[in-house]
Amino acid sequence: MNAAEFEHALLADIPLARAMQLRVADYDGERLVLVAPLAPNINDKGCAFGGSLVSLLTLAGWGLLVLKRGAPDCDIYVRDSQAHYLAPVWTDFRAEARLAADESWADFEAALAARGRARIAVACRVPLAEGGDACRLTARFVAVRR
Amino acid sequence: MNAAEFEHALLADIPLARAMQLRVADYDGERLVLVAPLAPNINDKGCAFGGSLVSLLTLAGWGLLVLKRGAPDCDIYVRDSQAHYLAPVWTDFRAEARLAADESWADFEAALAARGRARIAVACRVPLAEGGDACRLTARFVAVRR
Repeated sequence: MNAAEFEHALLADIPLARAMQLRVADYDGERLVLVAPLAPNINDKGCAFGGSLVSLLTLAGWGLLVLKRGAPDCDIYVRDSQAHYLAPVWTDFRAEARLAADESWADFEAALAARGRARIAVACRVPLAEGGDACRLTARFVAVRR
Repeated sequence: MNAAEFEHALLADIPLARAMQLRVADYDGERLVLVAPLAPNINDKGCAFGGSLVSLLTLAGWGLLVLKRGAPDCDIYVRDSQAHYLAPVWTDFRAEARLAADESWADFEAALAARGRARIAVACRVPLAEGGDACRLTARFVAVRR
Protein backbone atom coordinates (compact mmCIF):
# COMPACT_ATOMS: atom_id res chain seq x y z
CA MET A 1 0.00 0.00 0.00
CA ASN A 2 1.41 3.39 -0.99
CA ALA A 3 0.42 6.86 0.29
CA ALA A 4 -2.22 7.47 -2.40
CA GLU A 5 -3.81 4.07 -1.76
CA PHE A 6 -3.71 4.76 1.98
CA GLU A 7 -5.51 8.08 1.54
CA HIS A 8 -8.13 6.45 -0.68
CA ALA A 9 -8.72 3.64 1.84
CA LEU A 10 -8.87 6.04 4.79
CA LEU A 11 -11.48 8.24 3.14
CA ALA A 12 -13.44 5.23 1.88
CA ASP A 13 -13.50 3.34 5.19
CA ILE A 14 -13.66 6.04 7.90
CA PRO A 15 -16.59 8.49 7.61
CA LEU A 16 -15.03 10.85 10.16
CA ALA A 17 -11.87 11.12 8.03
CA ARG A 18 -14.14 12.28 5.18
CA ALA A 19 -15.92 14.73 7.49
CA MET A 20 -12.51 16.12 8.52
CA GLN A 21 -11.53 16.38 4.80
CA LEU A 22 -8.08 15.06 5.62
CA ARG A 23 -5.46 14.38 2.95
CA VAL A 24 -2.07 12.72 2.83
CA ALA A 25 0.46 15.49 2.13
CA ASP A 26 3.75 13.59 2.28
CA TYR A 27 5.30 10.25 3.11
CA ASP A 28 9.03 9.61 2.77
CA GLY A 29 9.39 6.25 4.50
CA GLU A 30 10.14 7.79 7.90
CA ARG A 31 7.58 10.56 8.33
CA LEU A 32 3.90 10.72 7.36
CA VAL A 33 2.20 14.12 7.05
CA LEU A 34 -1.59 14.46 7.03
CA VAL A 35 -3.34 17.79 6.47
CA ALA A 36 -6.85 19.06 7.20
CA PRO A 37 -8.66 22.36 6.53
CA LEU A 38 -9.84 24.42 9.50
CA ALA A 39 -13.49 24.91 8.42
CA PRO A 40 -14.82 21.36 8.99
CA ASN A 41 -12.63 21.03 12.10
CA ILE A 42 -13.46 24.28 13.86
CA ASN A 43 -14.74 24.61 17.43
CA ASP A 44 -16.94 27.08 19.32
CA LYS A 45 -13.93 29.43 19.81
CA GLY A 46 -13.10 29.60 16.08
CA CYS A 47 -9.92 27.50 16.33
CA ALA A 48 -9.30 23.81 15.66
CA PHE A 49 -11.43 21.40 17.69
CA GLY A 50 -9.32 19.29 20.07
CA GLY A 51 -11.04 16.12 18.87
CA SER A 52 -9.98 16.89 15.31
CA LEU A 53 -6.39 17.52 16.38
CA VAL A 54 -6.11 14.28 18.35
CA SER A 55 -7.90 12.34 15.59
CA LEU A 56 -5.52 13.64 12.91
CA LEU A 57 -2.50 12.93 15.14
CA THR A 58 -3.68 9.40 15.92
CA LEU A 59 -4.43 8.70 12.24
CA ALA A 60 -1.00 10.01 11.28
CA GLY A 61 0.63 7.62 13.76
CA TRP A 62 -1.47 4.69 12.64
CA GLY A 63 -0.94 5.54 8.96
CA LEU A 64 2.82 5.69 9.45
CA LEU A 65 2.80 2.10 10.72
CA VAL A 66 0.44 0.89 7.99
CA LEU A 67 2.65 2.46 5.28
CA LYS A 68 5.96 1.30 6.81
CA ARG A 69 4.50 -2.21 7.18
CA GLY A 70 3.31 -2.20 3.58
CA ALA A 71 1.77 -5.66 3.53
CA PRO A 72 -1.83 -5.93 4.82
CA ASP A 73 -0.99 -9.03 6.89
CA CYS A 74 -1.66 -7.59 10.34
CA ASP A 75 -4.18 -5.37 12.10
CA ILE A 76 -2.74 -2.32 13.84
CA TYR A 77 -4.60 -0.82 16.80
CA VAL A 78 -3.92 2.19 18.99
CA ARG A 79 -3.40 1.01 22.57
CA ASP A 80 -2.89 4.22 24.52
CA SER A 81 -1.86 7.81 23.93
CA GLN A 82 -0.90 11.03 25.67
CA ALA A 83 -1.91 14.34 24.13
CA HIS A 84 -0.61 17.79 25.03
CA TYR A 85 -2.47 20.82 23.71
CA LEU A 86 0.02 23.68 23.70
CA ALA A 87 -1.50 26.46 21.57
CA PRO A 88 -4.70 27.09 19.63
CA VAL A 89 -4.67 26.51 15.85
CA TRP A 90 -6.35 29.27 13.79
CA THR A 91 -5.48 27.95 10.30
CA ASP A 92 -5.57 24.80 8.22
CA PHE A 93 -3.26 22.35 9.95
CA ARG A 94 -1.00 19.34 9.52
CA ALA A 95 -0.01 16.39 11.66
CA GLU A 96 3.42 14.76 11.32
CA ALA A 97 4.20 11.27 12.64
CA ARG A 98 7.55 9.51 13.15
CA LEU A 99 8.61 6.54 15.26
CA ALA A 100 9.28 7.63 18.85
CA ALA A 101 12.96 8.35 19.58
CA ASP A 102 13.71 5.08 21.36
CA GLU A 103 11.88 2.77 18.96
CA SER A 104 13.41 0.35 16.44
CA TRP A 105 11.50 -0.76 13.37
CA ALA A 106 13.76 -3.81 13.07
CA ASP A 107 12.88 -4.89 16.63
CA PHE A 108 9.19 -4.38 15.89
CA GLU A 109 9.38 -6.51 12.74
CA ALA A 110 11.37 -9.20 14.57
CA ALA A 111 8.79 -9.38 17.38
CA LEU A 112 5.95 -9.57 14.86
CA ALA A 113 7.69 -12.39 12.98
CA ALA A 114 8.54 -14.32 16.17
CA ARG A 115 5.35 -13.90 18.19
CA GLY A 116 2.68 -12.72 15.75
CA ARG A 117 2.25 -9.48 17.70
CA ALA A 118 4.38 -6.48 18.54
CA ARG A 119 4.15 -2.99 20.03
CA ILE A 120 5.65 0.27 18.91
CA ALA A 121 5.35 3.94 19.89
CA VAL A 122 4.93 6.87 17.54
CA ALA A 123 5.59 10.58 18.14
CA CYS A 124 3.19 12.98 16.43
CA ARG A 125 2.97 16.77 16.32
CA VAL A 126 0.88 19.56 14.86
CA PRO A 127 3.47 22.26 14.05
CA LEU A 128 2.65 25.96 14.18
CA ALA A 129 3.45 28.12 11.14
CA GLU A 130 5.44 30.48 13.38
CA GLY A 131 7.50 27.62 14.89
CA GLY A 132 6.91 25.32 17.82
CA ASP A 133 4.02 22.89 18.18
CA ALA A 134 0.31 23.43 18.73
CA CYS A 135 -0.23 19.85 19.86
CA ARG A 136 1.87 16.76 20.56
CA LEU A 137 0.79 13.17 20.88
CA THR A 138 2.71 10.04 21.81
CA ALA A 139 0.78 6.91 20.96
CA ARG A 140 1.53 3.23 21.44
CA PHE A 141 0.20 0.80 18.87
CA VAL A 142 -0.08 -2.97 18.79
CA ALA A 143 0.14 -4.99 15.60
CA VAL A 144 -1.45 -8.45 15.48
CA ARG A 145 -0.86 -10.84 12.60
CA ARG A 146 -4.12 -11.96 10.96
CA MET B 1 -26.72 26.77 30.25
CA ASN B 2 -28.61 23.50 30.68
CA ALA B 3 -28.01 20.13 28.99
CA ALA B 4 -30.40 20.80 26.07
CA GLU B 5 -28.82 24.21 25.41
CA PHE B 6 -25.38 22.63 25.61
CA GLU B 7 -26.31 19.99 23.03
CA HIS B 8 -27.75 22.66 20.73
CA ALA B 9 -24.62 24.83 21.02
CA LEU B 10 -22.28 21.87 20.52
CA LEU B 11 -24.03 20.78 17.32
CA ALA B 12 -24.30 24.38 16.09
CA ASP B 13 -20.68 25.35 16.74
CA ILE B 14 -18.65 22.18 16.10
CA PRO B 15 -19.10 20.59 12.65
CA LEU B 16 -17.36 17.39 13.75
CA ALA B 17 -19.90 16.96 16.58
CA ARG B 18 -22.61 17.06 13.91
CA ALA B 19 -20.68 14.58 11.75
CA MET B 20 -20.43 12.25 14.78
CA GLN B 21 -24.21 12.70 15.40
CA LEU B 22 -23.59 13.00 19.12
CA ARG B 23 -26.36 13.71 21.61
CA VAL B 24 -26.53 14.55 25.31
CA ALA B 25 -28.14 11.54 27.01
CA ASP B 26 -28.02 12.57 30.67
CA TYR B 27 -26.67 15.17 33.08
CA ASP B 28 -27.35 15.02 36.80
CA GLY B 29 -24.96 17.69 38.10
CA GLU B 30 -22.12 15.23 38.68
CA ARG B 31 -21.99 13.09 35.55
CA LEU B 32 -22.48 13.98 31.89
CA VAL B 33 -23.33 11.25 29.39
CA LEU B 34 -22.93 11.77 25.63
CA VAL B 35 -24.00 9.15 23.08
CA ALA B 36 -23.10 8.55 19.43
CA PRO B 37 -24.25 6.02 16.83
CA LEU B 38 -21.70 3.60 15.39
CA ALA B 39 -22.38 4.22 11.67
CA PRO B 40 -20.85 7.72 11.29
CA ASN B 41 -18.05 6.77 13.71
CA ILE B 42 -16.99 3.44 12.24
CA ASN B 43 -13.44 2.54 11.19
CA ASP B 44 -11.88 0.22 8.60
CA LYS B 45 -12.32 -2.76 10.94
CA GLY B 46 -16.08 -2.20 11.44
CA CYS B 47 -15.77 -0.99 15.04
CA ALA B 48 -15.68 2.52 16.51
CA PHE B 49 -12.89 4.78 15.19
CA GLY B 50 -10.42 5.70 17.93
CA GLY B 51 -10.64 9.37 16.96
CA SER B 52 -14.40 9.30 17.53
CA LEU B 53 -13.95 7.63 20.93
CA VAL B 54 -11.37 10.14 22.13
CA SER B 55 -13.37 13.06 20.69
CA LEU B 56 -16.56 11.96 22.47
CA LEU B 57 -14.65 11.41 25.72
CA THR B 58 -12.95 14.80 25.51
CA LEU B 59 -16.24 16.54 24.69
CA ALA B 60 -17.93 14.78 27.62
CA GLY B 61 -15.22 16.06 29.96
CA TRP B 62 -15.37 19.58 28.56
CA GLY B 63 -19.17 19.58 28.62
CA LEU B 64 -19.22 18.47 32.25
CA LEU B 65 -17.19 21.54 33.20
CA VAL B 66 -19.27 23.87 31.01
CA LEU B 67 -22.50 22.58 32.56
CA LYS B 68 -21.21 22.56 36.15
CA ARG B 69 -19.88 26.09 35.64
CA GLY B 70 -23.21 27.23 34.24
CA ALA B 71 -22.27 30.85 33.60
CA PRO B 72 -20.49 31.58 30.28
CA ASP B 73 -17.92 33.82 32.00
CA CYS B 74 -14.81 31.76 31.24
CA ASP B 75 -13.28 29.78 28.38
CA ILE B 76 -12.48 26.16 29.15
CA TYR B 77 -9.71 24.44 27.19
CA VAL B 78 -8.35 20.90 27.26
CA ARG B 79 -4.69 21.01 28.31
CA ASP B 80 -3.58 17.38 28.18
CA SER B 81 -5.08 13.92 28.23
CA GLN B 82 -4.24 10.25 28.51
CA ALA B 83 -6.34 7.73 26.61
CA HIS B 84 -6.40 3.96 27.08
CA TYR B 85 -8.10 1.85 24.44
CA LEU B 86 -9.08 -1.40 26.14
CA ALA B 87 -11.56 -3.16 23.85
CA PRO B 88 -13.18 -2.57 20.45
CA VAL B 89 -16.71 -1.09 20.34
CA TRP B 90 -19.07 -2.81 17.89
CA THR B 91 -22.27 -0.91 18.79
CA ASP B 92 -23.58 2.62 19.33
CA PHE B 93 -21.64 3.98 22.30
CA ARG B 94 -21.68 6.42 25.19
CA ALA B 95 -19.08 8.45 27.04
CA GLU B 96 -19.50 9.31 30.72
CA ALA B 97 -17.54 12.10 32.44
CA ARG B 98 -17.10 12.91 36.14
CA LEU B 99 -14.53 14.94 38.05
CA ALA B 100 -11.39 12.87 38.68
CA ALA B 101 -11.32 11.19 42.10
CA ASP B 102 -8.98 13.67 43.78
CA GLU B 103 -10.56 16.85 42.39
CA SER B 104 -12.65 19.41 44.30
CA TRP B 105 -15.14 21.64 42.49
CA ALA B 106 -15.04 24.09 45.40
CA ASP B 107 -11.25 24.43 45.09
CA PHE B 108 -11.59 24.95 41.35
CA GLU B 109 -14.19 27.70 41.83
CA ALA B 110 -12.08 29.33 44.54
CA ALA B 111 -8.99 29.39 42.30
CA LEU B 112 -11.00 30.81 39.42
CA ALA B 113 -12.42 33.55 41.65
CA ALA B 114 -9.04 34.40 43.18
CA ARG B 115 -6.76 34.20 40.13
CA GLY B 116 -9.04 34.28 37.08
CA ARG B 117 -7.79 30.87 36.01
CA ALA B 118 -7.95 27.34 37.38
CA ARG B 119 -7.22 23.73 36.42
CA ILE B 120 -9.24 20.60 37.00
CA ALA B 121 -9.06 16.97 35.89
CA VAL B 122 -11.94 14.89 34.59
CA ALA B 123 -12.26 11.09 34.35
CA CYS B 124 -14.14 9.78 31.31
CA ARG B 125 -15.05 6.29 30.16
CA VAL B 126 -16.82 4.48 27.34
CA PRO B 127 -18.52 1.56 29.11
CA LEU B 128 -19.12 -1.79 27.41
CA ALA B 129 -22.65 -3.25 27.41
CA GLU B 130 -21.26 -6.46 28.95
CA GLY B 131 -19.44 -4.60 31.75
CA GLY B 132 -16.02 -3.01 31.98
CA ASP B 133 -14.77 -0.19 29.80
CA ALA B 134 -13.88 0.00 26.12
CA CYS B 135 -11.92 3.20 26.57
CA ARG B 136 -10.81 5.47 29.41
CA LEU B 137 -9.56 9.03 29.27
CA THR B 138 -8.23 11.32 31.96
CA ALA B 139 -8.11 14.91 30.79
CA ARG B 140 -6.92 18.11 32.46
CA PHE B 141 -8.68 21.34 31.57
CA VAL B 142 -7.88 24.96 32.24
CA ALA B 143 -10.57 27.60 32.72
CA VAL B 144 -9.69 31.25 32.03
CA ARG B 145 -12.04 34.07 32.98
CA ARG B 146 -12.96 36.24 29.98
